[in-house]
Amino acid sequence: MIASLVNGIPGDQVSILDRGLQFGDGLFETLAVVNNQSCLWDAHMARLAAGCSRLGMRMPDVNLLAEESRSLIGDHQQAVLKIILTRGCSTRGYAVPADTPETRILSLFSWDGPTSQTLKINIASTRLGLNPQLAGLKHLNRLEQVMARRELPSDCQESILLDAQGRVVEGIAANLFLQQEDQLKTPLLDACGVAGVARQLIMNTARAMNMPVEEMRLQPQDLLQADGLYLSSSLMGICSVSAIQGQNWQASRLSHPVMEAASKRIFQP
Amino acid sequence: MIASLVNGIPGDQVSILDRGLQFGDGLFETLAVVNNQSCLWDAHMARLAAGCSRLGMRMPDVNLLAEESRSLIGDHQQAVLKIILTRGCSTRGYAVPADTPETRILSLFSWDGPTSQTLKINIASTRLGLNPQLAGLKHLNRLEQVMARRELPSDCQESILLDAQGRVVEGIAANLFLQQEDQLKTPLLDACGVAGVARQLIMNTARAMNMPVEEMRLQPQDLLQADGLYLSSSLMGICSVSAIQGQNWQASRLSHPVMEAASKRIFQP
Repeated sequence: MIASLVNGIPGDQVSILDRGLQFGDGLFETLAVVNNQSCLWDAHMARLAAGCSRLGMRMPDVNLLAEESRSLIGDHQQAVLKIILTRGCSTRGYAVPADTPETRILSLFSWDGPTSQTLKINIASTRLGLNPQLAGLKHLNRLEQVMARRELPSDCQESILLDAQGRVVEGIAANLFLQQEDQLKTPLLDACGVAGVARQLIMNTARAMNMPVEEMRLQPQDLLQADGLYLSSSLMGICSVSAIQGQNWQASRLSHPVMEAASKRIFQP
Repeated sequence: MIASLVNGIPGDQVSILDRGLQFGDGLFETLAVVNNQSCLWDAHMARLAAGCSRLGMRMPDVNLLAEESRSLIGDHQQAVLKIILTRGCSTRGYAVPADTPETRILSLFSWDGPTSQTLKINIASTRLGLNPQLAGLKHLNRLEQVMARRELPSDCQESILLDAQGRVVEGIAANLFLQQEDQLKTPLLDACGVAGVARQLIMNTARAMNMPVEEMRLQPQDLLQADGLYLSSSLMGICSVSAIQGQNWQASRLSHPVMEAASKRIFQP
């Protein structure tokens, strides 16, 4: 870690009474910093605000977050900026005292930049629980991702997570798109999963190009029958999948105009 | 908070890189301290060890935890002892570096003791996600409980949580038992829920009295048709429910020899 701010003050400690630690009661954003700028800042702030609304937390002043982010980034050209927002500190128990101030934790990490590789992936045995109330949020309850990461084979770069009913949802730290001929499809995230900023950018890009992306229920066999698979995240950008569970694709089959266009936007401010 | 130890050292701060904060990657135990002793210590340690095994974490030396607990309790006759165990610190990302030492966080809170009241409860609209891999564990991913607590009506002391399929699971911070004539039933916790130490004590007590408790699937209507309901936890002990969603019970219908016997054991070492 290069540097960090806790509620605007340089430091790397939080209270053990912080509800982020006690209950995972909070949200986070992970942003690429390229050319000294946070990428897709507005989209990340919009998702954070939507998460606050869903969890009943106060969204901090975006100008304050921007100022703290700039101060932390300083003259670092390339880095990863992680923003954690928790519901703040309380005493023992789940009840939230009135007027508890949220905790802002900004941290900056060194980063070699996106590795524009094709990925070999597998399908995790860890499943995602179904909870529509929390679906789509990038909240701090991430034990499922931790467990999936622990079982990642050393020759794979990502794993696909299925939900409790066996439907395809996403990667451990990325969203998933499937290509069938020219059609793009991505799992509906109404019961679990994280609605990624890169995922949203891809969908917006498709709509702007008049090539809609369908959000739908997908089964594991849909992956194996696809003409191509893509994983997207704010840090990896858009990667194509070269192999999954013994199914291989030629890289040449995996180009899609929407993905090409969206790729050029991901590492912009 | 009266006092706290982080890895055995007096203090109330943890690193922002602690995986407990970053991902809720850890477990906790909450123990009643009565007559200067931690209650049901062995059962809490057994559950913590089982949780470590399921999550692939190292269980600390129980003698070390006991020593640190005694040091924290000091001469406090009555208190609540909370033990949080996280997978320790790591840099950004879900991967767990080899040989990362776990973080032990012990904290002591003042406590007025159990309030042996009958409870008025409701049924929460917040649902519990289904995840057999994490079911039963007292892990740090507790956003569902936070959301349920936020919607608790001011005239209720607890809420019953249903799972994503509408089945009855537990209270926000307690387990549930249902009485039909002399029969005791409690929800199966194979897909979600916390397997409480008080719940286990009740089941062990029943078996010792040759009065088995059935773990089974229960529906909301089963609650309304029951002859009595009980909630149990290490801090509340065993409480009977006086009202749920307009259904009222006479306190006299709620005595059961197993609950009477288990009640006498909950606040013992």
